[in-house]
Amino acid sequence: MSDTNKTWVLRARPVGDIKESDLELVESPMGDLAEGQVRVRTIYLSLDPTNRIWMSDMDAYMPPVGIGDGMRGGSLGTVVESRHPGFEAGDIVNTGLGVWALYQDKPGEELNKLPVLPGVPLTAYMGPLGATGMTAYFGLMDIGKPKAGETVLVSAAAGAVGSMVGQIAKIQGCRAVGIAGSDEKCAWLTEHAGFDAAINYKSEDVGAALDKHCPDGIDINFENVGGDIMDEVIARLSDFSRMPLCGLISTYNDTEPRPGPYNFANLLMRRTLVKGFIVIDYLDRFPEGIQAMAGWLLEGKIKFETDIVEGLEHAPASLDRLFTGKNLGKLVVRVSPEPEM
Amino acid sequence: MSDTNKTWVLRARPVGDIKESDLELVESPMGDLAEGQVRVRTIYLSLDPTNRIWMSDMDAYMPPVGIGDGMRGGSLGTVVESRHPGFEAGDIVNTGLGVWALYQDKPGEELNKLPVLPGVPLTAYMGPLGATGMTAYFGLMDIGKPKAGETVLVSAAAGAVGSMVGQIAKIQGCRAVGIAGSDEKCAWLTEHAGFDAAINYKSEDVGAALDKHCPDGIDINFENVGGDIMDEVIARLSDFSRMPLCGLISTYNDTEPRPGPYNFANLLMRRTLVKGFIVIDYLDRFPEGIQAMAGWLLEGKIKFETDIVEGLEHAPASLDRLFTGKNLGKLVVRVSPEPEM
Repeated sequence: MSDTNKTWVLRARPVGDIKESDLELVESPMGDLAEGQVRVRTIYLSLDPTNRIWMSDMDAYMPPVGIGDGMRGGSLGTVVESRHPGFEAGDIVNTGLGVWALYQDKPGEELNKLPVLPGVPLTAYMGPLGATGMTAYFGLMDIGKPKAGETVLVSAAAGAVGSMVGQIAKIQGCRAVGIAGSDEKCAWLTEHAGFDAAINYKSEDVGAALDKHCPDGIDINFENVGGDIMDEVIARLSDFSRMPLCGLISTYNDTEPRPGPYNFANLLMRRTLVKGFIVIDYLDRFPEGIQAMAGWLLEGKIKFETDIVEGLEHAPASLDRLFTGKNLGKLVVRVSPEPEM
Repeated sequence: MSDTNKTWVLRARPVGDIKESDLELVESPMGDLAEGQVRVRTIYLSLDPTNRIWMSDMDAYMPPVGIGDGMRGGSLGTVVESRHPGFEAGDIVNTGLGVWALYQDKPGEELNKLPVLPGVPLTAYMGPLGATGMTAYFGLMDIGKPKAGETVLVSAAAGAVGSMVGQIAKIQGCRAVGIAGSDEKCAWLTEHAGFDAAINYKSEDVGAALDKHCPDGIDINFENVGGDIMDEVIARLSDFSRMPLCGLISTYNDTEPRPGPYNFANLLMRRTLVKGFIVIDYLDRFPEGIQAMAGWLLEGKIKFETDIVEGLEHAPASLDRLFTGKNLGKLVVRVSPEPEM
């Protein structure tokens, strides 16, 4: 085992796009492991839009990462040493909110051993069985409350959350229409993920395409993006529509205040329900969500893709793939090889 | 009985503020009353912000009034002739959605006889026991779900709906803070209606005043107004706050698209629930709302004011009082004198 750790430390709050000087990869010696702690070697690091929120000092749902602190992020890894009775070397664990580092020392209470599901790869625990899968499941099921025959619209549909939302919507008997940023992604949505239609917002007139693919209006808008596209969607909501408000990724790099939807009044006219949520609000219901998603996964009803970047050193630069629409499916960094199972 | 009717007919869709030429008071002879119909002489005509919505062809929650049709509005009146077995001359009835006219012929099925409550004036059926009271009751109770100790913020607080919202909030054990447009209204809110604080948005810095009066954030924002003030409120919502979206009166006269709230992202961060609603969505629950409001009214827990304009001929010009903030309490037009009881 290496006796040197590597940690991405936040040096400055990004203004607009993340700059190289905003984070620094710091090497430090590994100390002794404290009683009750578990040392985990990171295998996969989850890159999510919310990482960008945590870097800034905007008024968000949890405090930002402190300047000089290790960058916060979800991860899973292998236990390499344990001073907690619940874990032993070789266990594969979810670290919950971890740190962008090669090694992480965590109290045993904060770790969860991953269940062994035959035929389910480790990356599924970053996707459908991880935080993004739970985000899709609870946002759609608890807030969207889909009914068979309804039309569900998903922005960032080829992303980790969006691709799950559309597939869960289909399982519920809904029509699923996705918005994504390339013909390749749109083809993946309709040909592999079972969406009824997909709109390439970079090459199509989104309003006209929504009129075509959602002729009876949009019953559920699972919002991941915000901005102009959200305006087009809000204009086409149906009466008593629901709008799980999951993310506004188009705005996270903003340096100037941005106007909200010009069609805000339509939320009143259509009697729409909008509900902001963060997946951690549903932490105590994760077992329910994981059971449902694992069942669908094992039945082959859920497809997922993982966009894997090799090497911890590429984490900050790779985060940009989420904001420029380069990733298909769940974006992760492979920090260490998967263990032989 | 007069054999001539007078009806306000919509001649043009207003652009911005209502112009004199947009409506015309038309005289017409009264025909014979058809079988099953009831002829009502209007006593009170309800003037509400939604009248302005019905005049325009914006995509709203019901079709606009047709050009050449009588203007739509809530009213109550006296039965002067009946060819329906359920009604007789002298009955006082609520017409539901009626017409801005001296006489209205309505099918008996669309009318409701007003209950007789000792000590409750007829105007109460335009206010706490009418559509505005039901708007306040269901918006706050069903969407806001107030809990004792929470802070409830109401815009247009001295209006027909807002003044009820704050008083119901107090009955539920909440703190009530209102925003209104004059010192006189603010004094009425705190001295008569029992609000804990009132903010004059015309003379005070609303953001600073909200910081002062809502130091722990705003748990429920009962939104009647929209615009810049809504932005200040959204910035101060607490986690898991609720926002019954009842009206956006500041925008109804707009001729240009208006940006939505700049703080829209805060609805996500605070996990706020926003729900648009129209009181007619709750029509089947009106008995519950009327029972609750009548009980509080008879117990003296609900105060209300009525801003009475004399004469049908002043209806269109008086609607402007709602948009310029001139009215305190429920704005009505007295079309005919109240009968001797």
